[in-house]
Amino acid sequence: MEQAAHGIPIGPLLLAVGCALLGAKIFGELAERVGQPSVLGELLAGVLFGSSLLGLVPLSDGLTLFAEVGVIVLLFEVGLETSLTELLKVGGPAAAVAIAGMILPFGGGYAVTRLLGYERLTAIFVGAALTATSIGITARVLSEMKALATREGQIILGAAVIDDVLGLVVLAVVGEVARTGKVDAGSAAKATGLALGFLVVAILAGIPLGSRLISVVGRANVRGVLLSAAVAFAFLLAWSAGQAGSAPIVGAFAAGLVLARTNRRHDIEHALKPVVDIFAPIFFVSVGAQVDVRLLNPADPANRPALLLALGLTAIGVAGKFLAGFCAWGGPIRRAFIGAGMVPRGEVGLIFAAMGKSSGALPEGVFVAVVITVFATTFLAPPLLKLLRPAAARA
Amino acid sequence: MEQAAHGIPIGPLLLAVGCALLGAKIFGELAERVGQPSVLGELLAGVLFGSSLLGLVPLSDGLTLFAEVGVIVLLFEVGLETSLTELLKVGGPAAAVAIAGMILPFGGGYAVTRLLGYERLTAIFVGAALTATSIGITARVLSEMKALATREGQIILGAAVIDDVLGLVVLAVVGEVARTGKVDAGSAAKATGLALGFLVVAILAGIPLGSRLISVVGRANVRGVLLSAAVAFAFLLAWSAGQAGSAPIVGAFAAGLVLARTNRRHDIEHALKPVVDIFAPIFFVSVGAQVDVRLLNPADPANRPALLLALGLTAIGVAGKFLAGFCAWGGPIRRAFIGAGMVPRGEVGLIFAAMGKSSGALPEGVFVAVVITVFATTFLAPPLLKLLRPAAARA
Repeated sequence: MEQAAHGIPIGPLLLAVGCALLGAKIFGELAERVGQPSVLGELLAGVLFGSSLLGLVPLSDGLTLFAEVGVIVLLFEVGLETSLTELLKVGGPAAAVAIAGMILPFGGGYAVTRLLGYERLTAIFVGAALTATSIGITARVLSEMKALATREGQIILGAAVIDDVLGLVVLAVVGEVARTGKVDAGSAAKATGLALGFLVVAILAGIPLGSRLISVVGRANVRGVLLSAAVAFAFLLAWSAGQAGSAPIVGAFAAGLVLARTNRRHDIEHALKPVVDIFAPIFFVSVGAQVDVRLLNPADPANRPALLLALGLTAIGVAGKFLAGFCAWGGPIRRAFIGAGMVPRGEVGLIFAAMGKSSGALPEGVFVAVVITVFATTFLAPPLLKLLRPAAARA
Repeated sequence: MEQAAHGIPIGPLLLAVGCALLGAKIFGELAERVGQPSVLGELLAGVLFGSSLLGLVPLSDGLTLFAEVGVIVLLFEVGLETSLTELLKVGGPAAAVAIAGMILPFGGGYAVTRLLGYERLTAIFVGAALTATSIGITARVLSEMKALATREGQIILGAAVIDDVLGLVVLAVVGEVARTGKVDAGSAAKATGLALGFLVVAILAGIPLGSRLISVVGRANVRGVLLSAAVAFAFLLAWSAGQAGSAPIVGAFAAGLVLARTNRRHDIEHALKPVVDIFAPIFFVSVGAQVDVRLLNPADPANRPALLLALGLTAIGVAGKFLAGFCAWGGPIRRAFIGAGMVPRGEVGLIFAAMGKSSGALPEGVFVAVVITVFATTFLAPPLLKLLRPAAARA
């Protein structure tokens, strides 16, 4: 029936989502059997099924939309599992980790690029691309190893959210540098205020709104009303975040934090789980599917300069975030685990790379190296986290 | 994070889905409180939130995709709740209802259009647009009133599936008439064979495949593996249906029928429920959102001819399907209920209308009348079914 006249045909989406789900579960299971987080398997399934190898999961508009909804429901679920009170308690160390975790990789990336003889603007883009942690990967691994509620988990989560908010500020500033060639302190301050302000307002306004919504919903009988209302709340807050110049996933996380304070928290979590089970793997598979394996072949001499640069940038990217973990304080905590949690880079790094390439600031070879670095940190993080997890999280 | 470079921005989709879910539940609840099926409320929420009134749920590519996935997971769920054995038992009466339910509205629509002085091709399109039952609406109402397992429910379901398959045949034939101006018996036979053949092959091949899949999945530990595998199976069968020239929803229904025969049926149903709760309302709201209320205003003289024609076509559309219900046989059954179950028209009717308009066969006024008729039958069906439901389905 669905061959109607509209933009996106449903057939290819059904095929891609079907293959992505099967691949995610097969490789996720294999990853678990060799002692790795299943998300690593999902990423690898994406690489294998992606356009550069089997081509079963092409990155169409429809699949990208599903993947974006996937990371939004995932962050909503993570928010639901998080206590705002506990999160605020680690606010200081989380902010320290987030800020150090932006300065160190930026400085390192900038320095290396300058040392290799590239110009200042190129170095700024490389540095900026190394700053933003991908909260999706870390949150999923923490959730899988039941480490979300540990003090380390809380610091990582807090730092990743702050990092996400600051990442948008860096994006705005670097975008302006690319356009005008200089930094404007006023617009940088405005971007910071907007992004942080949204989070505060969303939580303060969301708490009474969320509990009112849940109490109204409690009096309704229609099928699926609690889950529908909760998801609608998360989507609308995610939308508002985007409108306010912040990231949709920050809004979804805030919605989870807020609804976690209601008495229906566990019912929402229970009903949301299958939705996350279906959507989140699509996100991880589609991240993997963006890897072009042809660029990774060291036997091809054309790939070597980019691979070497990527090696250096990956070392800086991992070391910078890792050292930032040691800025955390309070109690007997495993700082190496916190650093490892900040290692994965994601979409924002790729946005910087794409922006740098299209503005001419990043030459092709540097662009490829940055992209490889983003993926290398993403694939390194799950095994690193598994290796370094604190005793409290060992089941 | 999601402002990346791709075709569909995520923001508007989040807003539309959020509003659609809230609207669906508010109006669904109101509908239930006045004794109507909640799906009627969801359709009305769509009308109110659609582009011609509040404009909160514009029919973007992204929303349409969500709606299509919604009707696919809904039909998968309906298949899971259906026994293939019971369905085959009512094969005879179901086929009779389906065939009579195509001939009567086609003949009636054709005759009225000819009597009004329109040419043959126009009459063919009007007749064809009145033939195809929307299985989504009926299945949802039957499920809501727990009437899927009644004999009447089984006959309606079987007839609606056959109707859906035959609808595609009519679509192929009428499409050829529009292109070439004449009917080719050979290609009509081929389309029939393909569409019916797919259903038979999908079920015969699906039964061993599905039970093998479920037994492999039973040995895996990774989170959400049963649901992911089941949804992947449904999506891949839906995709195959499309590839074979049949409808994706027929494939999804077949996948449900097949997995209903495994020992994990109830686990799949339980995990699938929240996914259907989130997706299916998007489908019903988006159907409602397609109604342009400005065309329904009888105070505007320009609307009157189309409204009058629509009134006549709706009477024929309802009467034709209703009478077809009386072709059912076997046991003490409520034939009026079966007829009512076949009344709602859906996407296929709109596809015929759009095809007729773009090929020039349907003048603007007739096109509008056909569209109004499709919606009128859709909105009439839920209260009609509620009114006529057999004693067995009264809770």
